[in-house]
Amino acid sequence: MDKYVSEAVIRRLPKYYRKLEELEARGVERISSSELSAEMELNASQIRRDFNCFGGFGQQGYGYQVKKLKNELYHILGLDQTYRCAIIGAGNIGRALLLYKGFGAKGFHMDAIFDINPELIGQQMEGVTIRSMFDFDTYVKEHQINVGIICTPSNTAQEICDKFSALGVRAIWNFAPCELKGPEWMCIENVHLSDSLYTLAYRVNNE
Amino acid sequence: MDKYVSEAVIRRLPKYYRKLEELEARGVERISSSELSAEMELNASQIRRDFNCFGGFGQQGYGYQVKKLKNELYHILGLDQTYRCAIIGAGNIGRALLLYKGFGAKGFHMDAIFDINPELIGQQMEGVTIRSMFDFDTYVKEHQINVGIICTPSNTAQEICDKFSALGVRAIWNFAPCELKGPEWMCIENVHLSDSLYTLAYRVNNE
Repeated sequence: MDKYVSEAVIRRLPKYYRKLEELEARGVERISSSELSAEMELNASQIRRDFNCFGGFGQQGYGYQVKKLKNELYHILGLDQTYRCAIIGAGNIGRALLLYKGFGAKGFHMDAIFDINPELIGQQMEGVTIRSMFDFDTYVKEHQINVGIICTPSNTAQEICDKFSALGVRAIWNFAPCELKGPEWMCIENVHLSDSLYTLAYRVNNE
Repeated sequence: MDKYVSEAVIRRLPKYYRKLEELEARGVERISSSELSAEMELNASQIRRDFNCFGGFGQQGYGYQVKKLKNELYHILGLDQTYRCAIIGAGNIGRALLLYKGFGAKGFHMDAIFDINPELIGQQMEGVTIRSMFDFDTYVKEHQINVGIICTPSNTAQEICDKFSALGVRAIWNFAPCELKGPEWMCIENVHLSDSLYTLAYRVNNE
């Protein structure tokens, strides 16, 4: 895809994918951009423009084939690939991500979890052992980890991010409540739970 | 605040707050918009415009007093208030949110957790009992719950959201991977973990 795809479009792709999964489950075989618009509270021309970034998929007067479009998005999102993930930090969030089954079904395998707390190291969680950070470099290299999931406190998150970048890991999913810096080839995606909660507090007090 | 504050500005408020907490911890007493700009990778005029939405706070040639600005944002975000939260769904994410200590320090009290699974109901987690959904209405009313945290699968999330709205709960923090609809007075904030992960997959494959 040579065409520049904006951040806003990229953020909508998973929402389209989710909606198409739901439509398929409901037995819907095809859908027009205006029907999809009503389902998603997006306007129809926006939807057509978004899909045009990737070469269209629709047919005038016919609409979109749900299953086909879903499969295209699956491919575009890279969900047809396998991701080997290592979680750093076996706290509440790290454990929840390790135990959640939904990601595996989409190709994201939670291969390993690391911590520095000696009381946690060696514990088993659904067949995965909590490993020491001393084994981090070797493990990441040997198991070709390509996604790093950072669930540590803020004060060590950048150091962990640097470790991943030194090992050439390109994708970082960051749950620490801070911004991380990495080389240009690294993709850092943040889930700032407290930001989300504070935004909710703001809105409930001001809207 | 009568002035219209855009979604983008609202989303930046928690980031400013976080940065100011960090600056305060580092002993920084005042900061100019251009220094803050360098710290946050936002441009200085953007920062001034954002703060102007709330009446300014800065002084020409002096900059911002870190502690004062942090306290103002604390108030603007509504963190000086108390939120009584009920979590629905005692799965991995629901439990992680219940056990995480950080939210309580900011006034968000995880008062209760509910589930429909009889094997979970009655279990204790750090002093909080997993309750049956049969007790939901009574509990929410009696304990004046004002934040509903939805950690159920998608197929029941809307029903839970409707239950909260019937009880007048205005704030919903939604972790179910679906969009929820509520009355206009309800504020729904989504944390779509899988969307975030899929976006990361897209970026790592296309950037």
